[in-house]
Amino acid sequence: MSEPVSPEELVTAGERLAAESARFAALGWMRGTSGNLSLRLRDDPLRLAVTASGRDKGELRGEDVVLVDGAGAAVPEQPNPDQRPSAEAGLHARIAAVAGAGAVVHVHVLSPVLAAERWPDGVRLRDLEMLKGLGRSAHDDEMVVPVVPNSQDMRELGDAFEAGFDPATPALIVARHGLYVWGRDLAQARHRAECLEWLVSFRLAADR
Amino acid sequence: MSEPVSPEELVTAGERLAAESARFAALGWMRGTSGNLSLRLRDDPLRLAVTASGRDKGELRGEDVVLVDGAGAAVPEQPNPDQRPSAEAGLHARIAAVAGAGAVVHVHVLSPVLAAERWPDGVRLRDLEMLKGLGRSAHDDEMVVPVVPNSQDMRELGDAFEAGFDPATPALIVARHGLYVWGRDLAQARHRAECLEWLVSFRLAADR
Amino acid sequence: MSEPVSPEELVTAGERLAAESARFAALGWMRGTSGNLSLRLRDDPLRLAVTASGRDKGELRGEDVVLVDGAGAAVPEQPNPDQRPSAEAGLHARIAAVAGAGAVVHVHVLSPVLAAERWPDGVRLRDLEMLKGLGRSAHDDEMVVPVVPNSQDMRELGDAFEAGFDPATPALIVARHGLYVWGRDLAQARHRAECLEWLVSFRLAADR
Amino acid sequence: MSEPVSPEELVTAGERLAAESARFAALGWMRGTSGNLSLRLRDDPLRLAVTASGRDKGELRGEDVVLVDGAGAAVPEQPNPDQRPSAEAGLHARIAAVAGAGAVVHVHVLSPVLAAERWPDGVRLRDLEMLKGLGRSAHDDEMVVPVVPNSQDMRELGDAFEAGFDPATPALIVARHGLYVWGRDLAQARHRAECLEWLVSFRLAADR
Repeated sequence: MSEPVSPEELVTAGERLAAESARFAALGWMRGTSGNLSLRLRDDPLRLAVTASGRDKGELRGEDVVLVDGAGAAVPEQPNPDQRPSAEAGLHARIAAVAGAGAVVHVHVLSPVLAAERWPDGVRLRDLEMLKGLGRSAHDDEMVVPVVPNSQDMRELGDAFEAGFDPATPALIVARHGLYVWGRDLAQARHRAECLEWLVSFRLAADR
Repeated sequence: MSEPVSPEELVTAGERLAAESARFAALGWMRGTSGNLSLRLRDDPLRLAVTASGRDKGELRGEDVVLVDGAGAAVPEQPNPDQRPSAEAGLHARIAAVAGAGAVVHVHVLSPVLAAERWPDGVRLRDLEMLKGLGRSAHDDEMVVPVVPNSQDMRELGDAFEAGFDPATPALIVARHGLYVWGRDLAQARHRAECLEWLVSFRLAADR
Repeated sequence: MSEPVSPEELVTAGERLAAESARFAALGWMRGTSGNLSLRLRDDPLRLAVTASGRDKGELRGEDVVLVDGAGAAVPEQPNPDQRPSAEAGLHARIAAVAGAGAVVHVHVLSPVLAAERWPDGVRLRDLEMLKGLGRSAHDDEMVVPVVPNSQDMRELGDAFEAGFDPATPALIVARHGLYVWGRDLAQARHRAECLEWLVSFRLAADR
Repeated sequence: MSEPVSPEELVTAGERLAAESARFAALGWMRGTSGNLSLRLRDDPLRLAVTASGRDKGELRGEDVVLVDGAGAAVPEQPNPDQRPSAEAGLHARIAAVAGAGAVVHVHVLSPVLAAERWPDGVRLRDLEMLKGLGRSAHDDEMVVPVVPNSQDMRELGDAFEAGFDPATPALIVARHGLYVWGRDLAQARHRAECLEWLVSFRLAADR
């Protein structure tokens, strides 16, 4: 069993999450207080640092972070006991566990939600150079980004995610809600989110 | 009866309004010198700090603020007597009084005005996660953002607002003009304005 | 006859033009080295400070400015003799003379050029609050922004401008080229340009 | 034969490439780690400084640069031997050699890729003032931006580029991939890229 997460380690993770959140907020992908980001800190048992709920994502501080377990619940030994994790922490933890992700970003970026509305059975992307940014080939390799119906029950969302999970597709669209993208670390998750947004914007405009 | 608003308190409110205005101006939602923001300072009698008229909303200083009464008129004991309130201060005051809002933002953001042009009887939004950002449910809960015709008579606009007022809907679109959104404080009003803009942009693009 | 423009006065004007140019460049309205801005310094004979040609409009310095006469030609007593005025300085000077403008901004912003393509006989705008930002009424007052064909001959462009000039309409679209807007000073010209862009974007999207 | 490129000269080139990359990244034209920029340092034999592969283009440092030869391969006497050039360095070198360019920018900007999808035989642009920003005339002078199919083989891409090369057209679109633009130096290449994006956005919107 791994050593506990110290308050210092958690705040350091919070600072990294805050910096990434501010980038996404500046893009307009975290309007209001929407969206949340997580970083894996321990594998066994699973522990994630997740951005705290209800804050402006362009103004997070290192303290605005919660340590959650594999179910997305705040652990009892919480360094900042007054912070609440987002309900969506449960889906972050599920993605981290199933996909082995080191970081998960969930943003309310418009184009994937529009694409899910148009292609509710999954958003098909192929023969585009930007697919390489998601670890796929730019030729003869179709990536289907799964679309799952929105729900407030993270177990339901997590089951739907897992049912459609393909290890080669590090993204999920929750219909009428937003986008999840993951990677080995926050930088890779961010780069993949940016590439996916480009790809989906291309498809929406090209198929107009 | 409450104690009078001191010049210091008004300038502090003006600084907060200036910071919020600069954010909206950077989004392009306060082009020219358009739009205005207000903050409730007293309940009885009602007193609001409102951004001064005719200024660039990206360059306001703390002094660019006016203290108005429940009719939106500058109070006689004005600390900065050379500042004029916007005519629209009358609608801010009406919204503050009727909805009990602590802060009101009025911005000239394009998508709600386009939506009002397409749906002049009100903009219907439902089954979208972002509705939670306006205090509504993401499922089976339709929010209809009222649309009222534009007018230069704030009493007329205020009456139209009040006639269609629903306490669960903290927003109003003035057709061919702009958007009003309110909340308990400036941060909540801003977050709601951002969420509403997202929702309306989604509907406009999804129903194309 | 008025006193000559000193090098210091010209550089001060250049600094103001540089600051305004940087704002427009950040909006994407002066891509490449396109567009130019001018400020009236003398009435009799007419003297304008105009941004120098061929520079990145986001990186101008106070020295990147030329003093031109009523025909848009660099005056002989030029403080910075190595700077060239834009050929378009001739149209700036014509607008300053005919409209009595204190400042003229010419930007390559996309939406007015698109509008001119759709409505080559003039872009009609009415019953919109933002018209107040151009000194017009928000009700029952139609503003027709003139459209003139593009030309490299500033006399030809100036004649076309003057033939369609209406003192109540401080804007001109040159088809397949860009937008001219003017006002009593740089701030007013900028505010009007921002409002016009909003109005034209609204019409283009509403009439889709 | 020219003198070797010193580590200091390469880092200086890297700093200029980093500054340009950050500008394009801020425009959203280098999402993920996409795109790359190059600067010609020697003519005989040809030597280019190229941005290193796999980095966030908004966060490059002067060290994130590779010296490549006329085939786009890292030269053996590499000052930073741990950096990899992008595979696309081969096309940069080909363009530098064939077009005599001093700088080449390759960005993943959306509108040219959309235009290539609509006009796979080349994107025709004429009678638009912005063409002057690419060294063309604003009247009666048609510029056809060549479109070549995407490939991972830089020799194949280079051959396709060369087959369609017109010295008067400093741009190339790789279908379903991105845009190449070049000029005598980085500033001119950037200005031309900005103008081309404007022109293509105009055509896409005007021909809707």
